[in-house]
Amino acid sequence: MARVALDAMGGDFAPRATVAGALLALADLPVQHTIQLVGRTEVVERTLDELLDGEHQAHRPHRDRLTVIDAPDIVEMSDKPTVVRSKPGSSMVVGLRLQAEGESDAFVSAGNTGAQMAASIFVLKLHSGLNRPAISTLFPTAGRPVVVLDSGANVDCKPEELVQFARLGTVYAQDMLGRANPAVGLLSIGEEPEKGNAVVKEAHQRLRLEPGINFVGNVEGRDIPLGRCEHDTLVVVVCDGFVGNVLLKFYEALAPTLMEVIATELGTQRDTLLAAFKQLDHAEHGGAPLLGVRGVSIISHGKSSPRAIKNAIGVAVRAVESRMSEHIGRRLADAAPNAPATPTPVA
Amino acid sequence: MARVALDAMGGDFAPRATVAGALLALADLPVQHTIQLVGRTEVVERTLDELLDGEHQAHRPHRDRLTVIDAPDIVEMSDKPTVVRSKPGSSMVVGLRLQAEGESDAFVSAGNTGAQMAASIFVLKLHSGLNRPAISTLFPTAGRPVVVLDSGANVDCKPEELVQFARLGTVYAQDMLGRANPAVGLLSIGEEPEKGNAVVKEAHQRLRLEPGINFVGNVEGRDIPLGRCEHDTLVVVVCDGFVGNVLLKFYEALAPTLMEVIATELGTQRDTLLAAFKQLDHAEHGGAPLLGVRGVSIISHGKSSPRAIKNAIGVAVRAVESRMSEHIGRRLADAAPNAPATPTPVA
Repeated sequence: MARVALDAMGGDFAPRATVAGALLALADLPVQHTIQLVGRTEVVERTLDELLDGEHQAHRPHRDRLTVIDAPDIVEMSDKPTVVRSKPGSSMVVGLRLQAEGESDAFVSAGNTGAQMAASIFVLKLHSGLNRPAISTLFPTAGRPVVVLDSGANVDCKPEELVQFARLGTVYAQDMLGRANPAVGLLSIGEEPEKGNAVVKEAHQRLRLEPGINFVGNVEGRDIPLGRCEHDTLVVVVCDGFVGNVLLKFYEALAPTLMEVIATELGTQRDTLLAAFKQLDHAEHGGAPLLGVRGVSIISHGKSSPRAIKNAIGVAVRAVESRMSEHIGRRLADAAPNAPATPTPVA
Repeated sequence: MARVALDAMGGDFAPRATVAGALLALADLPVQHTIQLVGRTEVVERTLDELLDGEHQAHRPHRDRLTVIDAPDIVEMSDKPTVVRSKPGSSMVVGLRLQAEGESDAFVSAGNTGAQMAASIFVLKLHSGLNRPAISTLFPTAGRPVVVLDSGANVDCKPEELVQFARLGTVYAQDMLGRANPAVGLLSIGEEPEKGNAVVKEAHQRLRLEPGINFVGNVEGRDIPLGRCEHDTLVVVVCDGFVGNVLLKFYEALAPTLMEVIATELGTQRDTLLAAFKQLDHAEHGGAPLLGVRGVSIISHGKSSPRAIKNAIGVAVRAVESRMSEHIGRRLADAAPNAPATPTPVA
């Protein structure tokens, strides 16, 4: 059973897309799962009524698995991460507090990512043995998706942080993707251990000695879309958040660009191609968990459609049911048994 | 008139692909241009005879625009960059020396990139005002291609080096692409000047003050395939060689991967799709100039086909005719009038 708090006010198309996404999710999920819509009560309830009176009429039976939790403040997309201190009544802080207080099991937002990260660290705290959380994103490939982390939470990384990402990514792949002994590659510009920048070269040496990680060595940019490296199916790719975020945004824009080119050249219908690209659509893969916080915080794309929100809620439920956060805590404790808790102060 | 020295021994498919590429280039280029095939004389001449007796019979009339220059040593793909000192008789060193001695105007190789860089710095020397050369690569986009530099020569960059790349990229875009006032973006993870890693943030501030650069601010990964940023057509993207190389290899592998996915989904013929992807094929864009050396050194992909070699030779001719290296020297001198020459020692 999972109680998922959804930031009803977060995202470019909120609250309509978020509330609709919640209804789609409830229709899909087993009945024991419930959703808490966090936002301005009157706005959320009005949206809910409109949808249930209109295109989502068929979802009326799920209404009683929804509760509305009031949160008067709104975090804008342009707000700095420090906003979480100045707006304690925002849907982000209220939604995460429910979890810290045992009233909820997971939080999902398509709002301001920086603020969600800051609020998650501030309210949920980090597991011991971690400097910073990491965002793990699924990259669709020719085979099964590859997990890339960090994809934006940490721009300047130390070698030890890349090792931490390998630990986080391994648990993620085991719990969320069901991959027993996931191959972890370190993103670099050549397969040889001596290739890469200074941080990557040192991280490589540390990862070779790291127990419990199926480290397959350096991988290159080409290995990600192929979903494999020389001898293995590639599952987890570790990189700093600068490289990861550049790649992620490059990839997101590339599929539609290629589609345009192909549609023009082949004269094929745009809609047919859109269908073909479905498996490459980030909305299909839902949200990206913020790994390392004590609990579940799922980051969704700002442009999330109801379908993307539905899938992000699905990711949240899987994270709760697999006890991913607990497993991460244990893995980090095993890696550094005497490490003190070092939560990073917010901004 | 350009005399292009081609490393006949460089590349996975050499010498057959290189010699065939030279013949294709001569057939395309105006008659005043000539090619020097640098390699083991007997191997090169045998290959040439075979091709002219066989599938390249039609190219016999161009035979007298080719000379063969003997170079007994061969640089292997697995050699370290320092190989250029231990193999002074390699096709790379011999080919570049022709240029340093005024017997040639440009050098093209599909061989070991690290060795080509080292040999180019060693033999041709760097322009004053530069720490390291940069590799500029054309990324196909929905519109006109975008120049990304550095795409692999420099893994750990200082802010000043990113500024140098902006100077190099501007001249490249003007001379090679005919773009009068090319928009230069700094690759980061957000448009705001305060977004990015420490090096990028400082480079942003310096680029804002840099005269003669049409700096449009930070750009993100998504702007590259789109070929534009908020208000401008994007022409030059500046980043360190780690990020640039990861992106380049990611991009190179992505097009074939997407093609597989689409071909499977649509049931379209693979060949038809290949034709559609032609404009996204790196071979179409030929070689990547190593910017900053005193002369012309064009880096081709190791897997270069004859067509890719032909296009790389075309790039070399354009670089010679536009006097790109001279313009780069002048631009760097203007930027730092009192800077001493600081060629980087090879390895």
